[in-house]
Amino acid sequence: MGEVVGNKKVVLKNYVTGIPTEGDMGVVTETVRLKAPEGSTAMIVKNLYLSCDPYMRSRMTKHDEPSYVPDFVPGQVITGYGVFKVVDSTHPEFKAGDLAWGTTGWEEYSVITNFEVLFKINHPEIPLSYYTGVLGMPGFTAYVGFYEIGKPKEGEQVFVSAAAGAVGQLVGQFAKLTGCYVAGSAGSDEKVNLLKNKFGFDGAFNYKKEQDLNAALIRCFPRGIDIYFENVGGPMLDAVLLNMRNHGRIAACGMISQYNREKHEGVHNLFCVVPKRLRIEGFVVFDYYASSYQKFEDMMVQHLKEGRITYVEDVAEGLERAPAALTGLFEGRNVGKQLVAVAKE
Amino acid sequence: MGEVVGNKKVVLKNYVTGIPTEGDMGVVTETVRLKAPEGSTAMIVKNLYLSCDPYMRSRMTKHDEPSYVPDFVPGQVITGYGVFKVVDSTHPEFKAGDLAWGTTGWEEYSVITNFEVLFKINHPEIPLSYYTGVLGMPGFTAYVGFYEIGKPKEGEQVFVSAAAGAVGQLVGQFAKLTGCYVAGSAGSDEKVNLLKNKFGFDGAFNYKKEQDLNAALIRCFPRGIDIYFENVGGPMLDAVLLNMRNHGRIAACGMISQYNREKHEGVHNLFCVVPKRLRIEGFVVFDYYASSYQKFEDMMVQHLKEGRITYVEDVAEGLERAPAALTGLFEGRNVGKQLVAVAKE
Repeated sequence: MGEVVGNKKVVLKNYVTGIPTEGDMGVVTETVRLKAPEGSTAMIVKNLYLSCDPYMRSRMTKHDEPSYVPDFVPGQVITGYGVFKVVDSTHPEFKAGDLAWGTTGWEEYSVITNFEVLFKINHPEIPLSYYTGVLGMPGFTAYVGFYEIGKPKEGEQVFVSAAAGAVGQLVGQFAKLTGCYVAGSAGSDEKVNLLKNKFGFDGAFNYKKEQDLNAALIRCFPRGIDIYFENVGGPMLDAVLLNMRNHGRIAACGMISQYNREKHEGVHNLFCVVPKRLRIEGFVVFDYYASSYQKFEDMMVQHLKEGRITYVEDVAEGLERAPAALTGLFEGRNVGKQLVAVAKE
Repeated sequence: MGEVVGNKKVVLKNYVTGIPTEGDMGVVTETVRLKAPEGSTAMIVKNLYLSCDPYMRSRMTKHDEPSYVPDFVPGQVITGYGVFKVVDSTHPEFKAGDLAWGTTGWEEYSVITNFEVLFKINHPEIPLSYYTGVLGMPGFTAYVGFYEIGKPKEGEQVFVSAAAGAVGQLVGQFAKLTGCYVAGSAGSDEKVNLLKNKFGFDGAFNYKKEQDLNAALIRCFPRGIDIYFENVGGPMLDAVLLNMRNHGRIAACGMISQYNREKHEGVHNLFCVVPKRLRIEGFVVFDYYASSYQKFEDMMVQHLKEGRITYVEDVAEGLERAPAALTGLFEGRNVGKQLVAVAKE
């Protein structure tokens, strides 16, 4: 019948307006039976690593219209990407002991019934936590946005905002592997240092120390920008538009600077889109898993094994630290990919 | 040696800030010898029709950085698109009597030495003035933006701003020929009436009478918008972003509402680009002449001969009326394609 055990979980306490705080979440303990319900295609999994991602901010607010991801529900467990081990399964393709990553709950054990994003881990020789990042959704996001939306050519000029984050650090390294010049912006000198000295960016600046973002971009890109990997929106996007070259591409992955605002900042330089023939294209990584994830995983595993990709994680130990880890993301406290280590294998 | 004749011309008197007025231009008379200079590849042409186009506003202001079209020069003749008859030519492909359209001066006779945009008129059985519009740059702009940038599919929902203008009226008709639903905005009830009763739009509204552009769009597009043909920018673009459907395309042709502003209005709803996977793409028709103009001309001539395309012109008679015709464009005074008839053949 399966053992019944305590199950600590992180729940949303209330819908959030403005900047989320730790107090908007709480940790509660319930129980769970470690047995997949009969007659279903469910799995019981033990969560090992949970991923803190910027898109989760949107889910903390109630939306009138359905979005591409559903809103969280107050009183219920927060969900997101994670790495887990199957404890019991009635799913034909998974058995106890399998390692997988995909959508799970912020709790010790989850009952998984939604298999839309669920991948077996094919390379357990790589640190498992990497499947929340470089081999998971953020890595795949960098891949889709840079290669499929940005369509880079050797020698082009690439700019990445939020460049020290889980996605940005990889975009910069893809750009170097493609033979591009790449510069990035980040929110602390420590991060700028990482960009230049660890991730191989050609240039970087701390946007919080710049009086004039346009001047900072002119300094980094005297020849202009061909590809902008957009993570932040707002005034940075405005400054970038002025510095784009003809036929430039803006791969819009997110606009984190706007997520906590009730009224979004205006972007004033969109007129550049016409004479410069710019393409601004938004994308959601979910659309690409079926067609391209496997190709990406193979490529990235090779890069990692051969030392061509460097990856930095910011690990919070224990589920109790998960609320602070998530809210830190919106204050830029993390350095590298923010994740929560819930349990050892 | 060639006869010397008087040559009336429209000159820019000074660079413009804000809304251009007739007084920013003047009509002067000089003389011209009706003989192409020896040893050149020049042509002397008699101008028949001149085209008033929104992009000309940008050329009336001094820019520090070079744009895709050069600024006008105070004291010198205004240049633009026109239809003309060759009077004398040393160009191997043109002879006296040929009809052509392309870049010319706002004057009775022009010496043409720039052949970048110059096309022989292959269908003199069509009204020649149409080569300033439906068969010229505006028609080709509608074609490129709708088909090549918008990539329409049958049954899609299409919105066009400045829909009664030279470009907009054709976009709407292309949409109907493609089996789309199409609605447009314009700045007077007369224009709205034209859209519905002459150009076959399914819906139309007078944006000046709408308190809330978002509400007007919801009324016209309860299912949302797949393709927006963008001519105006500013608050209309902001409202459109809220109403775009997933995977929608915005073909950015121009942003006339912003051309006379020293400070551009902010666009606040760009965050929609990511979850809705929108593509906003600017284009300049000049890039497409070599690859696609001939195909377009053949298609459009067939449409016109078989009565599938309706076209409305607003004709100012005489070069003296040219400054008022051009400034009227920025106040929305014209109904249909604004042009100036300079001379009969």
